[in-house]
Amino acid sequence: MLVFASDSRTHAGVDDVNTYCKMHPFLWDGDRVVVLLSAGNLATTQAVVKELERAAQDESAESLRSFAYFNEIAEYVGQVSMAVQARHHGEGLHQSGVSLESTFIVGGQIRGAAPDLYLVYPQGNYINYSPDQPFFQIGEAKYGKPILDRIIESGISLENAARCALVSLDSTMRSNLSVGPPVDLLIYPRDCFSLDRHMRYKLNSPYFASIRKQWGEGIRKLFDDLPRFDWEKS
Amino acid sequence: MLVFASDSRTHAGVDDVNTYCKMHPFLWDGDRVVVLLSAGNLATTQAVVKELERAAQDESAESLRSFAYFNEIAEYVGQVSMAVQARHHGEGLHQSGVSLESTFIVGGQIRGAAPDLYLVYPQGNYINYSPDQPFFQIGEAKYGKPILDRIIESGISLENAARCALVSLDSTMRSNLSVGPPVDLLIYPRDCFSLDRHMRYKLNSPYFASIRKQWGEGIRKLFDDLPRFDWEKS
Repeated sequence: MLVFASDSRTHAGVDDVNTYCKMHPFLWDGDRVVVLLSAGNLATTQAVVKELERAAQDESAESLRSFAYFNEIAEYVGQVSMAVQARHHGEGLHQSGVSLESTFIVGGQIRGAAPDLYLVYPQGNYINYSPDQPFFQIGEAKYGKPILDRIIESGISLENAARCALVSLDSTMRSNLSVGPPVDLLIYPRDCFSLDRHMRYKLNSPYFASIRKQWGEGIRKLFDDLPRFDWEKS
Repeated sequence: MLVFASDSRTHAGVDDVNTYCKMHPFLWDGDRVVVLLSAGNLATTQAVVKELERAAQDESAESLRSFAYFNEIAEYVGQVSMAVQARHHGEGLHQSGVSLESTFIVGGQIRGAAPDLYLVYPQGNYINYSPDQPFFQIGEAKYGKPILDRIIESGISLENAARCALVSLDSTMRSNLSVGPPVDLLIYPRDCFSLDRHMRYKLNSPYFASIRKQWGEGIRKLFDDLPRFDWEKS
């Protein structure tokens, strides 16, 4: 099972803020599911996703659909990312001081194998999840990490993992303007080979709003109930 | 009223980890209190603190005790910090690629004026707190910011502000190895001109341990009680 979650805010400076989905699912019904999450330079990620889409439509080409093992998919995404960065560098963009780097989370399942999950670095190399490291974050990761560290562990239910991702993104959005709604959430149960459980939440979407409200009020109450200092007791 | 909190971990790479207090209180009984928190290069912060201490012992010199206004203290700390960095640069350290920068939080009270609080940047300039921005963080700030954003507001009680600082540091220590115990906590009630409420907590110090335990268990329960997805209800 896999859970993917992403916000939708991109910016080129605080005065140029836009909304783009950072979740890119690919489905070959019954055969494989590949989901990309992206962080970093928007032009790079868009070019990478476009190249992955085009290659996948050409049955004779090497593409997300052609590899037998998931680590080859991670390798391929890394190579495409490197090629795009090199091309954009060649166009003189590197002189502007803008970073062209993008980082990806790539997960999914190829029929006959277990679901798999990789983090692909801007340098094209990649790491695999492990039982001790069952989740990855990319982009503005620190604000939302404490709740993941407390809750996520191997064996957690799909729904709890998804709820924890929502709480983590909620906390991040409250603390950092560069992270914003809507939030994409994709829940992938093992061996389902479909993308039916893909939700998109605005702040006022009923389920996300109920999570946000209950969590916020609960944290407040939890805080108010903490043990008192000695001198407060007398 | 002011609350100061700091961890004690310093490192020069993950294989060279040490413990240093990052809280530096100065007291002139009945006249003024100045508290420095430091983040960044340890050699720079130590040299700055030493220079502040030495100057304060020389009654004829410009020092923390000689200024009439708290913003002059922030200005002075910034100048000392710049002078130290320039001196260390001159010693050739800048060629090693190590950053000599340090950031400070400087707060306290001069008799006759209200308590005041500044953040001093490595460039020597500084900003003041405001009712809309009643707290500052320096160093590894992101992990612990969400709880501060939710709880800290103008008019919060001294004890609640202190508890919130402890929870914030606890979450940060759980998510990042570069932040570690003991935790220094200094609570300064307005017009008290003493440093009586300075606590130093290890992880197993009874009060800090009770906060950590109750918060951890409470977060777990709060999470378990969150609303269910539609399909979980049937």
